[in-house]
Amino acid sequence: MQTQFFAHLRCRECGRLYPKEAIHVCEWDFGPLEAIYDYEAIRRHVSRKRIESRAPTMWRYREFLPLEGEPSVGTQVGFTPLVRSERLAKALGVREAYVKNDTVNYPTLSFKDRVVAISLSRAKEMGFTTVACASTGNLANSVAANAASAGLESYVLIPSDLEASKVLGSLVYGTRVVGIRGPYDKVNRLCSEIAGKYQWAFVNVNLRPYYAEGSKTMGFEIAEQLGWRLPAHTVIPMASGSLLTKIAKSYQEMIDTELVEKAPFAIYGAQATGCNPISDAFRKGTELVQPVPKPQTIAKSLAIGTPADGYYAIQTMRKSGGAAEDASDEELLEGIRLLAETTGIFAETAGGVTVACARKLIASGKIPKDGTVVLCITGHGLKTAEVLTGVLAPPRVIEPSLREFDRLVSSDLAHASIPAKMET
Amino acid sequence: MQTQFFAHLRCRECGRLYPKEAIHVCEWDFGPLEAIYDYEAIRRHVSRKRIESRAPTMWRYREFLPLEGEPSVGTQVGFTPLVRSERLAKALGVREAYVKNDTVNYPTLSFKDRVVAISLSRAKEMGFTTVACASTGNLANSVAANAASAGLESYVLIPSDLEASKVLGSLVYGTRVVGIRGPYDKVNRLCSEIAGKYQWAFVNVNLRPYYAEGSKTMGFEIAEQLGWRLPAHTVIPMASGSLLTKIAKSYQEMIDTELVEKAPFAIYGAQATGCNPISDAFRKGTELVQPVPKPQTIAKSLAIGTPADGYYAIQTMRKSGGAAEDASDEELLEGIRLLAETTGIFAETAGGVTVACARKLIASGKIPKDGTVVLCITGHGLKTAEVLTGVLAPPRVIEPSLREFDRLVSSDLAHASIPAKMET
Ligand SMILES: Cc1ncc(COP(=O)(O)O)c(C=O)c1O
Ligand SMILES: Cc1ncc(COP(=O)(O)O)c(C=O)c1O
Ligand SMILES: [Zn+2]
Ligand SMILES: [Zn+2]
Repeated sequence: MQTQFFAHLRCRECGRLYPKEAIHVCEWDFGPLEAIYDYEAIRRHVSRKRIESRAPTMWRYREFLPLEGEPSVGTQVGFTPLVRSERLAKALGVREAYVKNDTVNYPTLSFKDRVVAISLSRAKEMGFTTVACASTGNLANSVAANAASAGLESYVLIPSDLEASKVLGSLVYGTRVVGIRGPYDKVNRLCSEIAGKYQWAFVNVNLRPYYAEGSKTMGFEIAEQLGWRLPAHTVIPMASGSLLTKIAKSYQEMIDTELVEKAPFAIYGAQATGCNPISDAFRKGTELVQPVPKPQTIAKSLAIGTPADGYYAIQTMRKSGGAAEDASDEELLEGIRLLAETTGIFAETAGGVTVACARKLIASGKIPKDGTVVLCITGHGLKTAEVLTGVLAPPRVIEPSLREFDRLVSSDLAHASIPAKMET
Repeated sequence: MQTQFFAHLRCRECGRLYPKEAIHVCEWDFGPLEAIYDYEAIRRHVSRKRIESRAPTMWRYREFLPLEGEPSVGTQVGFTPLVRSERLAKALGVREAYVKNDTVNYPTLSFKDRVVAISLSRAKEMGFTTVACASTGNLANSVAANAASAGLESYVLIPSDLEASKVLGSLVYGTRVVGIRGPYDKVNRLCSEIAGKYQWAFVNVNLRPYYAEGSKTMGFEIAEQLGWRLPAHTVIPMASGSLLTKIAKSYQEMIDTELVEKAPFAIYGAQATGCNPISDAFRKGTELVQPVPKPQTIAKSLAIGTPADGYYAIQTMRKSGGAAEDASDEELLEGIRLLAETTGIFAETAGGVTVACARKLIASGKIPKDGTVVLCITGHGLKTAEVLTGVLAPPRVIEPSLREFDRLVSSDLAHASIPAKMET
């Protein structure tokens, strides 16, 4: 990166400027700090052609990311498939549906690899040797894996009741996994205290301004993969609300730097009904997010009762003409199956929430049936496999005999013909 | 695809030519049929530049794949990361180590998405509406997912004792999963019978000549990602032995069509000791592969007792100056951890086998310590997560209290200092 586009940090509330350090709140009003760029310089520098000539990773949008030098961690992350699915569109009752498939993001199968790639690269630039995070599971997986490959020490803190695969998916990298008794909010508060005492890079606490910018790359990729245009409707799962605000920011940045034509883009947020502080506030028409002290949902990755960016997420949805929705555990399980059966993509609970909410938003007319919708599917289903126990019928088991197989197929055909008969 | 490069099928034994149909063995000698191309025409047509200008998927090597029209299934599969890891190289005791990371292959996290993309695309070209396979798990996942997205009916047949995640990872797509009591060989034999009776496309039976060619794309990608040169040493896990022979074929095709300079490439095969028919025959200096009737290994994806391509795999290793090796369950578990801790990549048991065998091949000097080695890591660790139960220490759990956390960190630091003291 020869030219510097990343200018400074700025308070989202009062606009005060801050140096590019490991800080995340304004000293005056405790507003969150955000990375600010010289957009005029970026506009002159970038072009579709220049971006297209680069490797297929999130770093092809490097001008929009808050680093000073070259990335050193997660250099191959991103540029996951955007999949158009006619079968999903039909099932959802909408003209055109796309899935942004971060279930195959590299290396840990969730969009969190994006935010970790940028924050650990920045942590190394700043000289940190121990990295850490507060996580509902996916972030922990990604910090653990990327720290391992970078040779950094790491601590990941998680609620002690996470899914087995999420826990295993951190332990295997040799990181120090610490389970905290209590919901995510307690984990997060403890991490703030730790960050104040230890000289560690907490990717989503003291490095949050850098971390959060990584989520923008999901939005850049969507627009590029649509042929350099913005989708009219984007559905995004919300925990802290950061991903949602950053995808909206990415769309706006692409307009501002003339990478895409100005066009309306409505942003929709999806939560689990058992932990819906943001969608609940949206529905009530307020920006005052009421904390959920005891989240009760199988969508554990989204179970943040006091969402740091809830206020901004609501503003983003409202201003863009979008909406919020939430889905029950039953609905999200149905969403996982619907996505798998129509598109061949196996999503974790958060993905089920996104599909189920998209369905409800379309059914209620909030997303028009003749529209184009992009679903952000952010984590892989094997990470939360246990929720499907008892939901899917087990395999049928037979002896290795053609006769037994014939019988099984006949019974399938008999069953398959029932609805056909009933239709006539 | 305007020009046709895929010419016909040919018997590997007698060289007789066959039309491009759903057939897989020679009528004269039961030799396997293989796809043959007009390499002279390919050589004139392809170039590095032309390939580089294409989308980052396996289809950028379309001239070397046995389709007649455009691919219609798995259009985004492949072009997974090739990762250079100094930490892994150090741990293995070799100068340079690369990991070809098919744990993040799309959509089902194994290299099998490559063989399924081509065989289902071909199946659709041929007019099949039901697809099927005999599988040790990964192939079933991929057939299930890709059939779902393509709207094809599917049956997948697996040994009834596979890992929970492998089974779930087929069921979720709504395919018909049939568990067969007995080892893989029985599943395979039954599938041959079924293929003879039903008009179905069995990707690895009657469509095997098309299916197998998909594995070549792993080799093409490795060479391109190394900057258009062949690696001197490639370590590849073996079940039927097909992947290994096809990676060697891809390297040779790149030489023949002048995409890379002619250079020696040694091919090494890796098996689990509990099912090592190929490595055992190699060690004994014979090409006569002795079946293993009752495989006994946690590397279930590699547990094929009667490997269809074992003979050719041995020839390939021998001619190329490579070797075969096998690893015990304990060694492969150690391999999984070593890879995770040094590169941040979480592999399934087959990947553990590959790492453990690479380590042994380097230790014994069969792969020179000053060489460059590529490890083909072919499936994701969450698919076989259960093998790590009891192997990894569980997370430490504390109350959300800074005091408790301080205590935990102090104990980590105390422990970390013990080996340092003992060294002096
Ligand atoms: C799979 C998944 N999707 C979405 C989110 C939402 O992220 P955010 O906190 O940015 O709203 C998370 C957060 O952990 C997640 O794990
Ligand atoms: C993860 C994995 N690696 C490697 C292989 C070996 O494949 P082949 O039968 O081509 O030797 C398999 C086969 O199922 C597999 O599942
Ligand atoms: Zn301020
Ligand atoms: Zn023959």
